[in-house]
Amino acid sequence: MKPSYAPKTKRGQVRREQILRAAERVFGTIGYADTSITDITREANTAQGTLYIYFKGKHEVFIELVREMGHLTREVISRTVSGAPSRLEAERLGLSAFLRFVAERPELYRIVEEARIAAPDAYRAYFTEFANAYRSHLLAAEATGEIRPGNAEIRAWALMGMAKTLGERYVLWQDDTDLDQVVDSATDLIRNGLEP
Amino acid sequence: MKPSYAPKTKRGQVRREQILRAAERVFGTIGYADTSITDITREANTAQGTLYIYFKGKHEVFIELVREMGHLTREVISRTVSGAPSRLEAERLGLSAFLRFVAERPELYRIVEEARIAAPDAYRAYFTEFANAYRSHLLAAEATGEIRPGNAEIRAWALMGMAKTLGERYVLWQDDTDLDQVVDSATDLIRNGLEP
Repeated sequence: MKPSYAPKTKRGQVRREQILRAAERVFGTIGYADTSITDITREANTAQGTLYIYFKGKHEVFIELVREMGHLTREVISRTVSGAPSRLEAERLGLSAFLRFVAERPELYRIVEEARIAAPDAYRAYFTEFANAYRSHLLAAEATGEIRPGNAEIRAWALMGMAKTLGERYVLWQDDTDLDQVVDSATDLIRNGLEP
Repeated sequence: MKPSYAPKTKRGQVRREQILRAAERVFGTIGYADTSITDITREANTAQGTLYIYFKGKHEVFIELVREMGHLTREVISRTVSGAPSRLEAERLGLSAFLRFVAERPELYRIVEEARIAAPDAYRAYFTEFANAYRSHLLAAEATGEIRPGNAEIRAWALMGMAKTLGERYVLWQDDTDLDQVVDSATDLIRNGLEP
């Protein structure tokens, strides 16, 4: 995370954080196009001028949230996965952590998806960084024989796509499907494929 | 596809089609929020009034394009897959047909993704109808023993997510990765999973 202006005082940090959390709620609920600076500062309970101390404008606040989502998902997943005995177990834990994260921060998920059009560079950076890390893990697991050989880059994107869509379908759409069942079924597919 | 107003004359059909194709280019390039009715009619080379003969407004044109994308992808894939000797082969052919379709109609892909926010009901309907058909195919293949037993609904969403993200990464972003290689690697993952 490289904030545009990192506040030096504790008070500044708190204010900047307040603005970001308010922006997360507003962008995530009404979308980028319909959000104004006033909507954000009203939600954050600060003056408009305060927002401009930390951000150049609406677009920069939005981009910062996409960066945050990247930072947070990578952190949450790598923390969860760090103790996994194998790559296959890491796949299960990582998917489960991702789905739980989407449940906790649904607005961030929506913000990242809206970035496809509202902030395409930030959107690409988010998924490319994630895919690069994922690819490295798959390559390492291939080297130790934990997984079958294969194209790690294409696999990384395929597996990310799976997780992303399951998050949308079974978390954001608030179906009553049990999340453990989603993780179990998807993990079975990832481990064993469809072939009998 | 249930058009709001289906023209009875050949000339009417041609005009409506012209408007839809113009709208596909405009929405798919500059996005829903920035597109005006005038942008569409200028691109279609028709009067504004002509658009209102067939559609209530911008939103209805957009929704019609999402419906079209649903109709077309299902048609393209089922046509390609109909001759497949097995479900596993159908997975390969279906993925390949989908990626080629995204390459031919990239604007339609972007329109569907933007519908997540701009027309959420149409977005959900698109993927839910697709998933329902996919689930039926997986259930039929499970019944004949062509694939391992599993949760067909969750599998359908997982596999759709995979295809969707591979389409975005390797078609829309115009990487120089060979599409056949993408299909091969993803199909290998779908068939055999990661387990050695």
